[in-house]
Amino acid sequence: MSDTISFARGAPSLDIVDVEGLKASALEALSEDPGGATGYGAASGYGPLRSWIAKQHGVDEDQVVVTNGSMQADAFLFDALVSKGDSVVVERPTYDRTLLGLLERGAEVEMIELEADGIDTVALRAALEAGLRPRFAHIIPNFQNPAGYTLSEAKRGELLELAEQYDFLIFEDDPYIEIRFSGEPLPTMLSLDGPSGGRVVYASSFSKTVCPGIRVGYLVGPRELIAQITKAATNTYISPDMIAQAIVYRFCESGRIEESVKTVSAALSERVAALTAALDQHLPEAEYNAPEGGYFMWVELPEGTDVAALEKAAGERDVVFVKGADFVIEGATNQLRLAYSGVTPEQISEGIERLADAYRSL
Amino acid sequence: MSDTISFARGAPSLDIVDVEGLKASALEALSEDPGGATGYGAASGYGPLRSWIAKQHGVDEDQVVVTNGSMQADAFLFDALVSKGDSVVVERPTYDRTLLGLLERGAEVEMIELEADGIDTVALRAALEAGLRPRFAHIIPNFQNPAGYTLSEAKRGELLELAEQYDFLIFEDDPYIEIRFSGEPLPTMLSLDGPSGGRVVYASSFSKTVCPGIRVGYLVGPRELIAQITKAATNTYISPDMIAQAIVYRFCESGRIEESVKTVSAALSERVAALTAALDQHLPEAEYNAPEGGYFMWVELPEGTDVAALEKAAGERDVVFVKGADFVIEGATNQLRLAYSGVTPEQISEGIERLADAYRSL
Repeated sequence: MSDTISFARGAPSLDIVDVEGLKASALEALSEDPGGATGYGAASGYGPLRSWIAKQHGVDEDQVVVTNGSMQADAFLFDALVSKGDSVVVERPTYDRTLLGLLERGAEVEMIELEADGIDTVALRAALEAGLRPRFAHIIPNFQNPAGYTLSEAKRGELLELAEQYDFLIFEDDPYIEIRFSGEPLPTMLSLDGPSGGRVVYASSFSKTVCPGIRVGYLVGPRELIAQITKAATNTYISPDMIAQAIVYRFCESGRIEESVKTVSAALSERVAALTAALDQHLPEAEYNAPEGGYFMWVELPEGTDVAALEKAAGERDVVFVKGADFVIEGATNQLRLAYSGVTPEQISEGIERLADAYRSL
Repeated sequence: MSDTISFARGAPSLDIVDVEGLKASALEALSEDPGGATGYGAASGYGPLRSWIAKQHGVDEDQVVVTNGSMQADAFLFDALVSKGDSVVVERPTYDRTLLGLLERGAEVEMIELEADGIDTVALRAALEAGLRPRFAHIIPNFQNPAGYTLSEAKRGELLELAEQYDFLIFEDDPYIEIRFSGEPLPTMLSLDGPSGGRVVYASSFSKTVCPGIRVGYLVGPRELIAQITKAATNTYISPDMIAQAIVYRFCESGRIEESVKTVSAALSERVAALTAALDQHLPEAEYNAPEGGYFMWVELPEGTDVAALEKAAGERDVVFVKGADFVIEGATNQLRLAYSGVTPEQISEGIERLADAYRSL
């Protein structure tokens, strides 16, 4: 199985991680601020990084908390906001770990269909008019996981209006924003909401721009909520990893992050081109919308295709992916997610050939 | 307030942190295993570090989970073991964050008096005979926080017998074990319990031997419990910080940790000597047992002394400490904790003079 080709995991291949830049950043972090990098810090995160993030988003520092990865931020946020029986809106399909985190806390999860330009706001409005009162709507606006779709600017505005009208928060979960390789960047809902809007909690991470093993994520949101989460962070781990956050700060502040984003975006652009070319050639039955950024592409096979059986047949041919059913509560049995972030163009071609062969075997 | 002398925080001063060793370890981590240090890892922690820890304790790897600091390990453990209304035994006094974590989860906390040679096992036995059925007993065996006391070998054996007889776990919380500067090391309860005993969950950390800002802690315990906690870790943060754990691994594997332990122990030995000398000279009313290791010393002032008032008077003289009452549920109003880890011998002398002056002002 040493030549297994994995479209399963949303992680970058090592060749697009700036390991030398990380070494330099580690040395700078420990030379320039040894006390800050090695000592217990604040539960809100390494001060200079927190300031850097605040500046990027045009908010005050006390609206930012930096955590051990953004999943940890999600966990704190869900603990703060979700009680058993609370309604929460998510996209359908959505990130499986988000779904799990919400279900574990007893949320009543309402999945609203995701369209190629983002969540179906007509369906959401209808659900709200019919009486749905969610605590928040979880939205992955750019290059959504698992679908790769991006929320249009019009729908961003519409979501904010609905949040205002029906009094819910938008949890804008945006780890992929920097990894855009075509099309024009769109404003975040956080920025559209404005500094005193208070309708948006924004999460992002350095997993896709620095590397995932460094586990640095963050939340930006209303002061009171951030204070509440910072208190939970204190009680959970005193302070997050200061060395990791000090390294990330030096990586950002030195401008290495911009180079890294260019490297990653260029590679992923190539990979998505290889993926769509291979599908068109070997598996023309597959329908997809080519993403403009990020790690993932959603593929729909003809109705009636048993993707669970395809997964098994593919595994026998040393190619793996995640089946669509994992990203919904029910259905999506003829759909799948292909992650192209960790595979080279050559592996992609070979992998799709194997996948097509598995498909023909069903 | 720039010359405030703090006996409040259990953290090392920067001069006893091996910053150069950390730089070298960071370079080694990123050169020798760039994929492991920068990629998503396992929720159980960075593999080589997990192996190293398992070897240190003579257990199998699947009995070890490495977390983002040992407070995070405690939080997972409490989530796994404590339901509302469960009885838990702790020492009196004990670490305030442990107390808070247990009370937050609705535990019925039974504090058993801590003596200079460890928890009062006679009182514990009496409570058990009277019907107390704890889920576990939380014990800080070496240089306890806040008291600085060490559990005798006889009492270690006795606790294991009680745990067996009354069917509870011992949570052996042992972050200070390596920082012994006098007396002989004692066996851990984990080792006395033996590899298949299953009565002990052991926690420790690299905060005191490498540095606190790196946030690497761990649990060793029964396989099933470790598997359950590893699953909770996956759902909380996917994987802990790999770069931090890879740095710690290189720090350990290179032998730098042994040098670091020598440096820290020698410095803390000097500091405790300065502390006791200053107390004997300036505040002879203070009673204490000089610790054989660790960061903390517990001080008892004459009955009737109002330590809350002393804290205020000391603050006005730019010297801070934590009052004893913070480490118990009720009482300890004439006691306090002095942390000597973050202050030089000179600062200690000056700080105790100020404290004595505050005491005289009451």
